[in-house]
Amino acid sequence: MSGWLQVAGLGPGDEDLVTPQVQAALSGATDIIGYIPYVRRVPDRAGLTKHESDNRVELDRARHALELAAKGARVVIVSSGDPGVFAMASALFEALEAGPQGWQDLDIRILPGITAMLAASARIGAPMGHDFCAINLSDNLKPWPIIEKRLRLAAQAGFSMGFYNPRSASRPHQFGQALAILREELPATVPVSFARNVSRPDERIVTVPLGQAREDMADMRTVVILGTAETRQVGRFTYTPRSYPEAS
Amino acid sequence: MSGWLQVAGLGPGDEDLVTPQVQAALSGATDIIGYIPYVRRVPDRAGLTKHESDNRVELDRARHALELAAKGARVVIVSSGDPGVFAMASALFEALEAGPQGWQDLDIRILPGITAMLAASARIGAPMGHDFCAINLSDNLKPWPIIEKRLRLAAQAGFSMGFYNPRSASRPHQFGQALAILREELPATVPVSFARNVSRPDERIVTVPLGQAREDMADMRTVVILGTAETRQVGRFTYTPRSYPEAS
Repeated sequence: MSGWLQVAGLGPGDEDLVTPQVQAALSGATDIIGYIPYVRRVPDRAGLTKHESDNRVELDRARHALELAAKGARVVIVSSGDPGVFAMASALFEALEAGPQGWQDLDIRILPGITAMLAASARIGAPMGHDFCAINLSDNLKPWPIIEKRLRLAAQAGFSMGFYNPRSASRPHQFGQALAILREELPATVPVSFARNVSRPDERIVTVPLGQAREDMADMRTVVILGTAETRQVGRFTYTPRSYPEAS
Repeated sequence: MSGWLQVAGLGPGDEDLVTPQVQAALSGATDIIGYIPYVRRVPDRAGLTKHESDNRVELDRARHALELAAKGARVVIVSSGDPGVFAMASALFEALEAGPQGWQDLDIRILPGITAMLAASARIGAPMGHDFCAINLSDNLKPWPIIEKRLRLAAQAGFSMGFYNPRSASRPHQFGQALAILREELPATVPVSFARNVSRPDERIVTVPLGQAREDMADMRTVVILGTAETRQVGRFTYTPRSYPEAS
C-alpha cells in the first residue's frame, strides 16, 4: 500500500460547504487526524482510525500524520475553513522541513476549503468586494506590536479586513486595543460585522458602526469583518463597491 | 411561484471544488445568468434558461437577474471563484441599491466558493499561511496610484499577497510597474508564484524569486501569489511559517 497525506479544509461548519474533493479524501482515508471537534465531524466507518488531538499541538499532529503516511497509511489532516488560512497547512510544512529528508518524497496535497472570512462575507453581503486583507489577531506566534503596525497600514491602504481569533479568555483586552487603533485611522461610521458560528444552526451576525464596536462582541468562535470608508448598506446587506471613488 | 436570486461561486474550474450548496442552487434554478464561460459550465436541462453575457457588463447582468427574480424566477448568477472576491456579489448590491425599493424584499443569497487565490495557494503549499491581502491589479475601477500605494503599504506590513487580474492585453505594462515597486520594498529572494488555470487540466504553476519575476509571466488567466521575507521552500512546496521571527 502506498501512503499519502492530504490536508483538507472542512469549511466553516455546514456540510453543504464541504467540497466533493474533500469528501473523496475523507472516504479514501485510513486515518483522520486533527483537533477534536473537526475529527468528530467525520463519520465513523470500518477501516478508519480517528486520531483526536487538542488545540495548540499543531506541530505534533503534523509529525504524527507524516509518520503514518511514511508507513503507508492514507492520512487526512482535517482543518476547519481553508487549511492554508491560519490553519494546518503551514504547520505541516514546518514539520516536513524539520523532519527526515525522505518525508519530502511523500504524496502530499492540500485541499482548499471555504474559509470563515469568506463564508461570513457571503452572509453579510459583499464586504470584501474590493481589495482586502486577513489578519490573525492572536499574538501566540507573533509579537503584538507587529499586529498593531499591520492594522494601521491596512487601514491606511483602504483594505476591508477579516480578523481571525479576535479574542480569547487568555487575551481578553487586545481586541479592544485593535479597535482603538482602527478608530484612530478610520471613520467611526465604517461597518464592523461580528460573525459567530458562521453557517452553523446557531449562526449569529451583528453589524455595528466602528464607533460602537466593543471588544466583548467577539470571542474565539467569531470572525470579525471590517469594511472600508466606502462600504455601504443596502437593505439588510453590507457591501463594498467594486470601484474606488477617485476613479471617476 | 416565489422567486429568488442566488449568486453562486463555481470555484476555479474543477467541478470537484464546487460545493453541494452551489450544486443545489443550480439544480433548483429556472434561470442561470453570467459571463459566457461560467454559464457554459452548467449542464443544459429542461426548464432551465441560460443567459450568457459578455465580460464587463456586470451591472446590466445584475439588473437583469433582479428583474427576473422580481417576476418570480429562481435565478442563479454564476461567478467564478468566490462571488464576494472581485466577482459578482458587489455588482449585485450596486444594482440593488440603484433599483426599485421593492427589490430589497427579494430572497437574495450569496453562496461562497473556492477563490482562485486560495486554490492556487493550496497547489503551491501554504504561501498565505500568515497574514495576507488580496489586490485586484486592474485599474478599470480604481486609479492606478491607489494600487501603487496599496502595494507599498502591504509590503511594509509584511503581508503575503494575492494579485487578481494582474495583466491584460489592454494593460500590458502595469504589472511590470507593480513588480518594480515590490522590488523596492522587499528582498529579491521573496518567492512569486504564477498560477495559471488553477485546478484545470492545463494548470501551470511557476515559482521564481521576485528578482527574476517578469511581467510577461502573467496574463488574465493567472493569479499571482507573492510570499513574504519569511516565506520558505521545502521540497517542491512554498510556505509562509505561522510564526513571525521576532516573536521568539
